[in-house]
Amino acid sequence: MICLAYHIPPLQSLIEQFEKLPGIGRKTAQRLAFYVLDLSKEDAGKFADAITKAHEKIRTCTICQSLTDSELCPVCSNNGRDKTTICVVEDSQDVMAFERTKEYNGTYHVLHGLISPMEGITPDRLKIKELLHRIGEDDIGEVIMATNPTVEGEATAMYISRLLKPFHIKVTRLAYGIPVGGDLEYADEITLMRALEGRSEL
Amino acid sequence: MICLAYHIPPLQSLIEQFEKLPGIGRKTAQRLAFYVLDLSKEDAGKFADAITKAHEKIRTCTICQSLTDSELCPVCSNNGRDKTTICVVEDSQDVMAFERTKEYNGTYHVLHGLISPMEGITPDRLKIKELLHRIGEDDIGEVIMATNPTVEGEATAMYISRLLKPFHIKVTRLAYGIPVGGDLEYADEITLMRALEGRSEL
Repeated sequence: MICLAYHIPPLQSLIEQFEKLPGIGRKTAQRLAFYVLDLSKEDAGKFADAITKAHEKIRTCTICQSLTDSELCPVCSNNGRDKTTICVVEDSQDVMAFERTKEYNGTYHVLHGLISPMEGITPDRLKIKELLHRIGEDDIGEVIMATNPTVEGEATAMYISRLLKPFHIKVTRLAYGIPVGGDLEYADEITLMRALEGRSEL
Repeated sequence: MICLAYHIPPLQSLIEQFEKLPGIGRKTAQRLAFYVLDLSKEDAGKFADAITKAHEKIRTCTICQSLTDSELCPVCSNNGRDKTTICVVEDSQDVMAFERTKEYNGTYHVLHGLISPMEGITPDRLKIKELLHRIGEDDIGEVIMATNPTVEGEATAMYISRLLKPFHIKVTRLAYGIPVGGDLEYADEITLMRALEGRSEL
């Protein structure tokens, strides 16, 4: 409750809804709620509609488990994409990040999480079965493990790469190194070590 | 448009709605949209509802012009408040700020803006007529000008205090000075000068 003395229930509940969003504190929630109140009736309706419509229409692609509003996602339904390469990512936001590079022409597989015993996320809660199914069905040449370079991301990549051993396909991992535009001085030791290990000839 | 290559219309429109909010950039908008998608259907419905309901139910108090969901706001409808003192503020968020102090027992008057020739906001677009009407009707002892200490806030306070001259009532202004918990070293010259001017005996 942001203000007990001045209690207007519809305003409070709007503020509380914004407060639940990640990274939004009390003051920001209040500012956003007042902004929404200042919108025209039409614009406020559009905002509310966008929330309900997104929830109604968005589901996961039957092949790669990424978000889509139809049977297949834009990548899986595109015949110009290389269907023999699968890039395994944690969530659909990672798919968008890769798509923004406009460099990758293969397909994706969204795990919808990472293995994390601490948070009770076991491998069976991720979309790993679906990945194995795709590899068994289709002619896959390479699986790129593109999970985050964190403990959970590494563990998940290792776990899946072991499961893929029997299929005898190429399993790769994203390169580690210094980020472009970064500063060597601020890079941590492990990143620097990995950058050295992965050095290439000029 | 945040990602052309991976275009899912309901998701894009949700992201765009969040992007319109003040202080929310592209990446945050995307993060918030994904958070909303991850909500249960019920919680997403509550969020959408909070927006439409707030718009439907919230209007301005017929006396002080502050936001309320009934005829009068919680302050004007409270018989325990001192109706002879009016604190003039820019918007309803300022009312909430004062109410949080739990120290002020008078009423408010919300101008819904400040005079700003640069932005084309002239005095007739503010709720000044309504303030004069209140002062003409009721037995008002003091009007506290509590607009922001900015150029627009000062100009508005000066303008209104001149209009109030003929009524021969006490018109006061919030004290200027160093903010509690602040650091003298970082205070600007004008604030320090005003703090010196307004010094009181210990």
